[in-house]
Amino acid sequence: MALPASQLQLIAPENFPRVRPGDDLAAQTAAALARAGIGLADGDILVYAQKIVSKAEGRLVNLAAVSPGPQALELAPVVAKDPRLVELVLRESRRVVRAAKDVLIVEHRLGFIMANAGIDQSNVADPSGGDYALLLPQDPDASAARIREQLHGLTGCRPGVVISDSFGRPWRIGTVGVAIGCAGLPATLDLRGQADLFGRPLRVSIVGHADEIASAASLLMGQGREGRPVVLLRGLAAGGAHQPASALRRPGTEDLFK
Amino acid sequence: MALPASQLQLIAPENFPRVRPGDDLAAQTAAALARAGIGLADGDILVYAQKIVSKAEGRLVNLAAVSPGPQALELAPVVAKDPRLVELVLRESRRVVRAAKDVLIVEHRLGFIMANAGIDQSNVADPSGGDYALLLPQDPDASAARIREQLHGLTGCRPGVVISDSFGRPWRIGTVGVAIGCAGLPATLDLRGQADLFGRPLRVSIVGHADEIASAASLLMGQGREGRPVVLLRGLAAGGAHQPASALRRPGTEDLFK
Repeated sequence: MALPASQLQLIAPENFPRVRPGDDLAAQTAAALARAGIGLADGDILVYAQKIVSKAEGRLVNLAAVSPGPQALELAPVVAKDPRLVELVLRESRRVVRAAKDVLIVEHRLGFIMANAGIDQSNVADPSGGDYALLLPQDPDASAARIREQLHGLTGCRPGVVISDSFGRPWRIGTVGVAIGCAGLPATLDLRGQADLFGRPLRVSIVGHADEIASAASLLMGQGREGRPVVLLRGLAAGGAHQPASALRRPGTEDLFK
Repeated sequence: MALPASQLQLIAPENFPRVRPGDDLAAQTAAALARAGIGLADGDILVYAQKIVSKAEGRLVNLAAVSPGPQALELAPVVAKDPRLVELVLRESRRVVRAAKDVLIVEHRLGFIMANAGIDQSNVADPSGGDYALLLPQDPDASAARIREQLHGLTGCRPGVVISDSFGRPWRIGTVGVAIGCAGLPATLDLRGQADLFGRPLRVSIVGHADEIASAASLLMGQGREGRPVVLLRGLAAGGAHQPASALRRPGTEDLFK
């Protein structure tokens, strides 16, 4: 008889509809899962690409309506970006962390250290022929909680919900999926106080749990084509009290790597 | 008829044996998969926790045999760590990035910016009652390639192989799985030059692919208990030419986040 094996599944319904401002993501998710023959179950986690959450929430900005201020006009040639885009980045940010050609790293108003304040111009629908930019959701933890409650109303299940984005890293090449919002699951797992097999304190004591979930989902979402912006994660044993994704932001004073 | 859904599976055989110096990880993997009734298939990726690769390669050091030098003796009280452990960290490192109470961030000789040069004292078997520390593999990319070839000899399949560790992040709370070695898959996916649905260049252009794989596997491995140190990832569409995990290290001169 075969010994047991632990298993996780990541499932993405194909042909998720193109999301437009005002769309109901929970209803679209329930419909997409039903079309794929997948029933939502307790313990499931749904990961949403930030892009579709922002779109549903109407976070599109027409660049033609943006007047760059003095700081944006000064910074734009340094970073070789559209001054109107730079203006939006500054409006969404607390401070500029680094500016160089093609590089604009900021501390986002939500506390994320990230490129371009997470503002995206790729895959942004262009209803009028103009140039549009897409901002992060106003409050991604609240977005995740809202989607979760709406899914509960539609399906009777309360899945965990993660809103993912792709972040660059200071000392690693390439972006990875991270959680900018979550609901119904702990964003971090705190293993402090747990001992290993030999009674020693664990070296790894806090795990960026929701970030690992976002990275896993990213493998299936793919990049850029928007084909699979919603991923269902099934089989994760680690439960625990809800903790928002804001818990994953390391406050500046605790920056041990500086 | 249900529409198709894309799917990834992560499978960890239970009861993987405790690994000891000199063990043959490929043979142990083939046996564990067979016991769990899982046949290896082309396209599969196996993720190994660094800890068992280091153990199999005999990277255990008896602290009783380590004489701390002057730099270690000076640094140990600053970081509140055993001077012998600090000595090992320094030997494994190119430079100290940050030292403070309970914090010793270094640039590892392999180029990783990480805490304690990746040296682990938890879950390190203690054959003689002494204190042992476990160093990273000498060359994790070579380890991955070797395991891959051995698996091919045993099973006829050449899976991708990733060696994972848990790294802290400068601006995020919690550790996440990252790839310190890989073979038979691209460590990064380079999407530069690809356009989005609307013909714009993609914002996300290089993806830390093997790091995302390591983070996904970490969800199933759990932390600290060593119960599931090998995870099989099945269903990943992204192929591409092999590229070692060393490609994920951002050279100091390219550190855009400084």
